[in-house]
Amino acid sequence: MGINSNRVEHCSDHACHETTLTISSTDIAMPALQVHKVCLPPQKTTLQKLRHRLSEIFFPDDPLHKFKNQTWFNKLVFGLQFFFPIFQWAPNYSFRFLRSDFISGLTIASLAIPQGISYAKLANLPPIVGLYSSFVPPLIYSLLGSSRHLAVGPVSIASLVMGTMLSEAVSYTDEPILYLQLAFTATFFAGLFQASLGLLRLGFIIDFLSKATLVGFMAGASVIVSLQQLKGLLGIVHFTSKMQIVPVLTSVFQNKHEWSWQTIVMGVSFLILLLITRNISMRKPKLFWISAACPLASVILSTILVVLFKSKLGGIHTIGHLPKGLNPPSSNLLYFHGPFVAIAIKTGIVTGILSLTEGIAVGRTFASLKNYQVDGNKEMTAIGFMNMAGSCSSCYVTTGSFSRSAVNYNAGAQTVVSNIIMAAAVLVTLLFLMPLFYYTPSVILAAIIITAVIGLIDYQAAYKLWKVDKIDFLACICSFLGVLFISVSIGLAIAVGVSVFKILLHVTRPNTVVLGNIPGTQIYQNLSRYREALRVPSFLILAVEAPFYFANATYLQERILRFVREEEERIQANNETTMKYVILDMTAVTAIDTSGIDTICELRKALQNRSLKLVLSNPVGSVMEKLHQSNILEAFGLEGLYLTVGEAVADISSSWKP
Amino acid sequence: MGINSNRVEHCSDHACHETTLTISSTDIAMPALQVHKVCLPPQKTTLQKLRHRLSEIFFPDDPLHKFKNQTWFNKLVFGLQFFFPIFQWAPNYSFRFLRSDFISGLTIASLAIPQGISYAKLANLPPIVGLYSSFVPPLIYSLLGSSRHLAVGPVSIASLVMGTMLSEAVSYTDEPILYLQLAFTATFFAGLFQASLGLLRLGFIIDFLSKATLVGFMAGASVIVSLQQLKGLLGIVHFTSKMQIVPVLTSVFQNKHEWSWQTIVMGVSFLILLLITRNISMRKPKLFWISAACPLASVILSTILVVLFKSKLGGIHTIGHLPKGLNPPSSNLLYFHGPFVAIAIKTGIVTGILSLTEGIAVGRTFASLKNYQVDGNKEMTAIGFMNMAGSCSSCYVTTGSFSRSAVNYNAGAQTVVSNIIMAAAVLVTLLFLMPLFYYTPSVILAAIIITAVIGLIDYQAAYKLWKVDKIDFLACICSFLGVLFISVSIGLAIAVGVSVFKILLHVTRPNTVVLGNIPGTQIYQNLSRYREALRVPSFLILAVEAPFYFANATYLQERILRFVREEEERIQANNETTMKYVILDMTAVTAIDTSGIDTICELRKALQNRSLKLVLSNPVGSVMEKLHQSNILEAFGLEGLYLTVGEAVADISSSWKP
Repeated sequence: MGINSNRVEHCSDHACHETTLTISSTDIAMPALQVHKVCLPPQKTTLQKLRHRLSEIFFPDDPLHKFKNQTWFNKLVFGLQFFFPIFQWAPNYSFRFLRSDFISGLTIASLAIPQGISYAKLANLPPIVGLYSSFVPPLIYSLLGSSRHLAVGPVSIASLVMGTMLSEAVSYTDEPILYLQLAFTATFFAGLFQASLGLLRLGFIIDFLSKATLVGFMAGASVIVSLQQLKGLLGIVHFTSKMQIVPVLTSVFQNKHEWSWQTIVMGVSFLILLLITRNISMRKPKLFWISAACPLASVILSTILVVLFKSKLGGIHTIGHLPKGLNPPSSNLLYFHGPFVAIAIKTGIVTGILSLTEGIAVGRTFASLKNYQVDGNKEMTAIGFMNMAGSCSSCYVTTGSFSRSAVNYNAGAQTVVSNIIMAAAVLVTLLFLMPLFYYTPSVILAAIIITAVIGLIDYQAAYKLWKVDKIDFLACICSFLGVLFISVSIGLAIAVGVSVFKILLHVTRPNTVVLGNIPGTQIYQNLSRYREALRVPSFLILAVEAPFYFANATYLQERILRFVREEEERIQANNETTMKYVILDMTAVTAIDTSGIDTICELRKALQNRSLKLVLSNPVGSVMEKLHQSNILEAFGLEGLYLTVGEAVADISSSWKP
Repeated sequence: MGINSNRVEHCSDHACHETTLTISSTDIAMPALQVHKVCLPPQKTTLQKLRHRLSEIFFPDDPLHKFKNQTWFNKLVFGLQFFFPIFQWAPNYSFRFLRSDFISGLTIASLAIPQGISYAKLANLPPIVGLYSSFVPPLIYSLLGSSRHLAVGPVSIASLVMGTMLSEAVSYTDEPILYLQLAFTATFFAGLFQASLGLLRLGFIIDFLSKATLVGFMAGASVIVSLQQLKGLLGIVHFTSKMQIVPVLTSVFQNKHEWSWQTIVMGVSFLILLLITRNISMRKPKLFWISAACPLASVILSTILVVLFKSKLGGIHTIGHLPKGLNPPSSNLLYFHGPFVAIAIKTGIVTGILSLTEGIAVGRTFASLKNYQVDGNKEMTAIGFMNMAGSCSSCYVTTGSFSRSAVNYNAGAQTVVSNIIMAAAVLVTLLFLMPLFYYTPSVILAAIIITAVIGLIDYQAAYKLWKVDKIDFLACICSFLGVLFISVSIGLAIAVGVSVFKILLHVTRPNTVVLGNIPGTQIYQNLSRYREALRVPSFLILAVEAPFYFANATYLQERILRFVREEEERIQANNETTMKYVILDMTAVTAIDTSGIDTICELRKALQNRSLKLVLSNPVGSVMEKLHQSNILEAFGLEGLYLTVGEAVADISSSWKP
């Protein structure tokens, strides 16, 4: 270790004691000067480090901490509760809970039935699949899920994306069976993907869909879905199967002769009704039931209207015959060989990620309102198994829906039993009430979808992004325009790209600031930010605010040398004391790689050529370790490494003054 | 600004003065307590911020600083020198310089001629193209380039990559003209790409090829090139055109019957000779001329041997007829329409990036040895224009070669005039000496190539990577294996992916440490690293070592809550004072985005639910600004934001003690 060994030590050997230097009597102003050693982190083998790293990556929440120091029986109970959260709340379940869950369950069922039918149409699937999907998945989720307020079922975004991606490969009008097969297969892969992410504890992958990206994506998707609904709202028969804004609008105006005034009048009236009730509930959350009940009420009312005025409303397209009965098994429809497997897998992964994002965000939101924890990886596993089971029982992709969960929460749901109640209500509908939908006009479904997705356009969030972070706003706009003009998956990819680019840009062009001393303290702060901070004569103190990586090694070297040049010019212009030391405050240099280490070496040489000495202050643990391993600390010597900028300045000044 | 306005202020209004709190007499140990305000950075408009950001991205070196405060004439001179560095050194050029440059120019010419022929064969081009490429590009570079020691010409890596990528699309034996067209077109696009990077000041893109990646890539490419040379070294006639290790080795042993003992004996003897001379020069840099002269000597010697023993050495393949004369124009051969433009562009970009990386790294290396600056963006422009001009005069991709530049430097080159001397020597060769190469055996070229590329395998650097940074080593191994078993471009892409993944991983799973106070100081340091650091009762002090981004928002929230839980368990186990405050030291949180701000809000709420108060300490300028813009500071109040951990602890403790 050479000459530096008396200041750099592994703490594990208890040797990091402070050394007290006595200051000569000529230097009265300064208190007894303490210089602290810069310690290395406790020594670890490569294997220990790898283990620590992996446990931070995959088990940051230490999921097994409950199991520590427990009896065998307790461990079994905790294990059961871990895999089936139902065992956590079931023992304490009371009649009071059941009453609340019953009311909220019926409320969300009244929303889930019309939404299920509508969203299935959005995915270009038979309406009945939407109802099937509101029956099996909620039951599975109530066994495995850890959120108490999530209302499970089909959601608009995943339905839309599945509809778009599959229609690009297969026509749902020409080959309905193949299309259905692909939808179930995509659902299966979505579930498999979600469950794998959860089981492999790779949940952090969905964190890369930042909120900014999602705000833009949701807004873009909402606009596209709403425009698509113009088909139903205007009664157009021949419509484009494309999803981009341009072909959809072209299609709307090219088929003007197909517009049906009866459809338009009915659609617009119910749309206005739905929007007004939605607005009322948003302003007064206590009146949540008005907007929750309105879709079902609209369906019933419009069906009655069509039945009563059958002769006059002949132009209105109705749902028609829906088969009675429970979910038929669909595992025989799964499609694992053939030319379309790739598109099914791709659709599965994209819808899987999107539905996870929505489900987990919704779960976390309501969990934080009621102050309980939702385990992301466990939720993923639950949603994954739910979709895999769904794909074998004629369901398509489902997750926790934001709108229905909000209604569930407001209606006072206490546990996932409300999902079971909802499933029971859907069961009754499937078994007995299907014929009632025969005369339900399609236009009402379009109105319900538009009302649901319009709420996803969060322009206030977009404005806040603009105000606080311009690059976040750029990611938001990119995903919005990408979805609108190119395609759903490319829009998303662009937005993720922008977000990742932002991280890289932060590393590639980090901020470097010149520090000064705040008089009377040991505090060194940014000179341009703190007016009271003063330059210390003979020193240039720089703080780099990023890791030293290959991506910024060249930049940092050039930039620091430019700071030195500018400081030299300033000193010359003002006739101040010449600079002798450049202190690099490494507090915010949170990591370093081999290129970074080379940069520091070269920087040291370049400064030496200008008769300047480079001093490092407060390297963090991992940086210190790497500097030590690469043997460059020897070159720095005793006066090249300090624990704080204050100690560096004091010690160096004291050593040359006497 | 609410209640916080008396501590948070823009420094531009001169209001950031310190407030002195008097401590009650019960608290004798503490000196008069100063609490400093946390300042916002000076206010800037969005436009000013954008301008600052862009200038940091594109002009970090402030290239125009020389032009400031200069007369009109000086500005003109500096401008000329800026665009044509020849004007910088030409006025001071002396006879002494010329003598040095003449010697070094002739030395590198003796290396450049055999290497030129060899590398052209490596790119599957006619050998003469290699000589052409050692004539025009050095002349252009000597006008535009800013490095004094760079020896310009074809290099092994770029030749190899061009050979691989083009052969995958077009056979150089079946369609030699088309292949040549594509090579010149790729060279044109390489030059265009390089010049654009330089002119648009996007030079930092090549920084993403980290040193670790390059070490692995070079080693992989060297192995592949060496194996390819087995064709020449063993005298095999029918050889695979693939580059991966498996088909090459298969091809070698399947064609065992074509092995020619005369070729093998001659090749191996000269290879041993070349390797020995290379080793001598490496051990004693003063004997550089031995390895520099050896390739040409070998070529001459082997040619004489073939001529003398023509009858007995009939099995040895020779270069054959080479046309005499200067570079013919080739702009008519550029190929901008047709099915292969895409492959030409792709090859151009990959070889362009690789040759830039080599050229700039070499330029910087020798510049730092002689203590002068090489401007990366200017070098890119120079290399780019040189290649664009080259593509119109029958040259393929050229750059600064590491081996020849080292010889140039050791031979005492002073300026780029040595490149001009070298070009003159090549000119003489082209005009008069071409027939002499008729009997030069191909096997000698294989031996020269192997000797050149074997030096690129830097196993010491790889070992150092392993020792210092395991993920860097992983990137190195990935690019090595990727190049060896898959393909050059995919190997590179994987390695860049690993490097970028490392940056993302650092952000996704940042380090968080618990701080303690070093007694008698205001220093707070990592408890697990500094044994003397002590926990402060009632406080949990955490330092997060990464920006707060969308990619780590969820993780940080969970991880911090886990720290709180663990601390509570520890306190309970030891019967210590209950925790009341969680201080988050934000010094190393170098940036924040909207997701990060939301995390801080939610963290504050989650801690409040456990009767804990969140206190932020020392947010950096940009973070402070965003916290302010998003109005969350109001929630933190006066006791929620401090300049240092020390002031936070002192102020909070003093407020509850009296």
